[in-house]
Amino acid sequence: MAKYRNAHGGNLRASDIGNEVHLAGWIARRRDHGGVVFLDLRDASGHVQVVLNPDDAPASEEVMRRLRNEFCIMVKGVVRPRLEGTVNPDMPTGEVEVGGTSLEVLSTADTLPFQVDERFDADEGRRLQYRYLDLRRDRMADNLRSRSTAIRAMRHVLDDLDFLEVETPTLVVSTPEGARDMLVPSRLRPGQFYALPQSPQLFKQLLMVAGVERYYQVARCYRDEDFRSDRQVEFTQLDLEGSFWDQDDVLDTLQAIVTRVVKDVRGIDIPHPIPRMTYADAIARYGTDKPDVRFGMEIVDLGEVFASSEFRAFAATLADGGTVRGINAGDQGLSRAGFDKLVAQAQDLGAKGLVWMVVEEDGSLRSPVAKFLSEAELSGIAATMDGKPGDALLIVADEVAKAAAVLGELRLSLGRPDNHDDLEFLFVVDFPVFERTAEGGFVAAHHPFTAPLDVAEMRNSPETAVSRSYDMVLNGAELGSGSVRIHDPELQSQVFEILGVSADEAQARFGWFLEALRYGTPPHAGFAIGVDRFVSILQNEQNIREVMPFPKTQTGADPLTGAPGVVADTQLEELGIDVRAEVRAAWSDTTSDS
Amino acid sequence: MAKYRNAHGGNLRASDIGNEVHLAGWIARRRDHGGVVFLDLRDASGHVQVVLNPDDAPASEEVMRRLRNEFCIMVKGVVRPRLEGTVNPDMPTGEVEVGGTSLEVLSTADTLPFQVDERFDADEGRRLQYRYLDLRRDRMADNLRSRSTAIRAMRHVLDDLDFLEVETPTLVVSTPEGARDMLVPSRLRPGQFYALPQSPQLFKQLLMVAGVERYYQVARCYRDEDFRSDRQVEFTQLDLEGSFWDQDDVLDTLQAIVTRVVKDVRGIDIPHPIPRMTYADAIARYGTDKPDVRFGMEIVDLGEVFASSEFRAFAATLADGGTVRGINAGDQGLSRAGFDKLVAQAQDLGAKGLVWMVVEEDGSLRSPVAKFLSEAELSGIAATMDGKPGDALLIVADEVAKAAAVLGELRLSLGRPDNHDDLEFLFVVDFPVFERTAEGGFVAAHHPFTAPLDVAEMRNSPETAVSRSYDMVLNGAELGSGSVRIHDPELQSQVFEILGVSADEAQARFGWFLEALRYGTPPHAGFAIGVDRFVSILQNEQNIREVMPFPKTQTGADPLTGAPGVVADTQLEELGIDVRAEVRAAWSDTTSDS
Repeated sequence: MAKYRNAHGGNLRASDIGNEVHLAGWIARRRDHGGVVFLDLRDASGHVQVVLNPDDAPASEEVMRRLRNEFCIMVKGVVRPRLEGTVNPDMPTGEVEVGGTSLEVLSTADTLPFQVDERFDADEGRRLQYRYLDLRRDRMADNLRSRSTAIRAMRHVLDDLDFLEVETPTLVVSTPEGARDMLVPSRLRPGQFYALPQSPQLFKQLLMVAGVERYYQVARCYRDEDFRSDRQVEFTQLDLEGSFWDQDDVLDTLQAIVTRVVKDVRGIDIPHPIPRMTYADAIARYGTDKPDVRFGMEIVDLGEVFASSEFRAFAATLADGGTVRGINAGDQGLSRAGFDKLVAQAQDLGAKGLVWMVVEEDGSLRSPVAKFLSEAELSGIAATMDGKPGDALLIVADEVAKAAAVLGELRLSLGRPDNHDDLEFLFVVDFPVFERTAEGGFVAAHHPFTAPLDVAEMRNSPETAVSRSYDMVLNGAELGSGSVRIHDPELQSQVFEILGVSADEAQARFGWFLEALRYGTPPHAGFAIGVDRFVSILQNEQNIREVMPFPKTQTGADPLTGAPGVVADTQLEELGIDVRAEVRAAWSDTTSDS
Repeated sequence: MAKYRNAHGGNLRASDIGNEVHLAGWIARRRDHGGVVFLDLRDASGHVQVVLNPDDAPASEEVMRRLRNEFCIMVKGVVRPRLEGTVNPDMPTGEVEVGGTSLEVLSTADTLPFQVDERFDADEGRRLQYRYLDLRRDRMADNLRSRSTAIRAMRHVLDDLDFLEVETPTLVVSTPEGARDMLVPSRLRPGQFYALPQSPQLFKQLLMVAGVERYYQVARCYRDEDFRSDRQVEFTQLDLEGSFWDQDDVLDTLQAIVTRVVKDVRGIDIPHPIPRMTYADAIARYGTDKPDVRFGMEIVDLGEVFASSEFRAFAATLADGGTVRGINAGDQGLSRAGFDKLVAQAQDLGAKGLVWMVVEEDGSLRSPVAKFLSEAELSGIAATMDGKPGDALLIVADEVAKAAAVLGELRLSLGRPDNHDDLEFLFVVDFPVFERTAEGGFVAAHHPFTAPLDVAEMRNSPETAVSRSYDMVLNGAELGSGSVRIHDPELQSQVFEILGVSADEAQARFGWFLEALRYGTPPHAGFAIGVDRFVSILQNEQNIREVMPFPKTQTGADPLTGAPGVVADTQLEELGIDVRAEVRAAWSDTTSDS
């Protein structure tokens, strides 16, 4: 590296004082103090102060005057202590500076579209258009570094456990019902299409049939759905699968992975073991299958308190098989108007209503409905919900699932920390096998290749049957999910039957996979972790775009390169496809979208 | 792992004798010897012999009789020494066997489409259709393992050098001239398309602009060309790039990578340093830019010998600026008919002809043209080509490039080892900047972002100008290529000008990239290694398909899953595209292709 540098500026320390160094990097900031130029020189290792005094570097004086922010330069100089009073304890290199003796501009920079500085926050569209400048900011550079560190940590754990990394294909078959596969037209078979994988699910199961036994892959996956703020059309997951494996093997491996990742990225040790909670418990206590357990405010069942209530709203709900539940939101300091907003929020979430109560200094409950409740009910509420003076108690009477969901959402909006300084992992286990569709049929809660805990139960009461699937949750975000898979083709057929998939349809959609199961398939289980979400939480970022080098906008566009774009007709012809006439017509109407 | 096993069969050794083990795996072979069943049990660790004697495992006797090859089973038993005379020194577990005490079938296998055994070689179409069985074969399992080991070794070297792994997008912009991009229609922007990347080239250069300084990625890339036997539409490359880097930095890093890979996969140390050869030298001595230097048979220039020849064919060629060159093919034991075949081969390769000579015992030359040559010429040939009795000397008189290419091909077909037991790496450097097109213009020899060695030379004599690009060659195969990049936008414009790309066209095609170069771009350089080819050579495989888990056929099909396929019209409608009427019409004519 002798040609451009022999040291990295960000690594210089007091022990380097007296050394002649050759540095290369970017000008993060420059100040001119009476002819002496002070540079904050940035490279991948960090920042260091460079002082250019024309007396020390007369040959470079002319160049010195031309310097602007973000020029890429090469400096030779000597490491020396900073003058007394100018030591900067906030910088790792704050005790030293480099006294420049020569200077060369490697390349200049045009006027910047925004300041490359944490203190200025540019519009996201501009940031994406000039992503190469945005990524120079320390925060973004750190996000990229941490992502690399996280993935490396995952690999180290799995390599040590003798997992094989196997690259499954990304040009795969589109299953007939896969309306939201991303498609790739085939030139050698015009009019036919590959799909980009939503996950390597079936291929990793084939690898188990193939005897690989321990598989992982940091896999690019594709999901063509309407973009939400935290989704991207392409994303990365750590995908893993093991044969002769059971749920405990998977969860133990996951614990080892996330422990190492958190240690390497954040330098902290997470407590062991990672707690486990059943799906039923999670719904009952937190109203969600991905509880944020960094704070309490758990949902409390008030059914017993109101067992013989004369308050019509509660009594009728209970009589209809519904539930009365509440959360103690603590002292939220809410005015009457504040509570009205909560009521409106609950109604927006689909609840019929929300009853609020405030615990007074004397322990009594103030509430618009207090007058309808008996003394026993009022004291029962306070006792069951552990109400202390000032606490806001929020109660919903509704269908069981609705009450849980609404209280779960209120709990989050009232209690959730707005950062990720603490990290609390949780495994949610024992998910149901099936969910009811609106039409009254069943869909697979996880996916149709998930093993039930008990085959007889699955057949006899599919609605409540428990599966061998599990999620990993961090700070209330689902980091990933997995399951023990079905390895018996007969059981697989039974699952399809309950799902209302006929034998013919199953054959048409998954025939090749069902056939594979017939050749000595081992018991196997696996998981996939969403890398983007995981890293964004580790980095305390609200949005996964901040931890992706070149993300797309919410409409799937890349403001930097202009993707996607219009392509030549000749190219489409080779593929046997054409853009529909109505789309072309719309193009000529709007010239702005090209 | 207690549920299914507590040991791996392939790891059992004499030191395990006496241990009770629980094993799980597949029946690779079974023999029934008078009621006692001998199993070759295979798992990911290898093979071990299991002996099932009904006397030791009475409860399992019925199951024992039902066993067939490739059933997946679980066995409990005790490790014991094999009987004298049955020790198998060719197996790592050959000193021991497991005396089974109980047996459980985890899953059965249907009748196999082919034997899962090295000794049977099934048709490749069948192998791909049942890839999950094909991959159970030891050779294929070893290929997958070695591929994983190779990639891990690459990562270890780069991680140790503080490279960041960065995932560049795979849904990118299609450049207007990219007739062979694989396309992905966008649903959110109907009628528009993403392209799948042919390489991360421009994104990795943007990462250098972004200050990443050291980047790598094991990247999936896509190439929609007509398939040849050793190409796949999707393939994997180790992609790397560094800032403040020069050619030596790249080549040193590559040497460290391949040294580690060869050590980890093959257990051998390659000699250092990896030799370097200029492009000009490679063409002159081997007739190719990817010489196989495992054997000599170098091309010799006979121009001086024939400087004043009266043999018309040679004299005319030399007078026209052509060349007379030859190789000493050694003792090939060829008959007259054998030489005639070589002449035909040379003509197929485009040569006007081929002169052959055989060195007789007395040192004289036997050849159809001997009578036209002078004594001095004949002895000059023998001396220049170091002819020894029995050697076949092959001479071509033609245009310089043609003679080199033809002799290079003949050299390979006569001398190239048919295995990869030896590994000889070579860096070929100093490639030309440009190549002439058939129309008389220029194209970039590497790619248009490659820096010339000398800017003035590039402008003054583009035809012969040398670039700062380089290839890595292993056993005559190009493993990858790279270059020092242009980091000066003005120089980039000059290159486009010589290439005949107008400023407007450059702007339309690469405007966003050219703009990025204007913001303090550091000097940078990089490389990409083809992982599939590299691993196939390490594994002594002739075809990259053998080291890919689920490759496509030469027409881009996957016989296992049926990809690519026809998709629903509703899905195409969402994307704003349609299959052309003539393609649909062709479908109804041929029902076989669906």
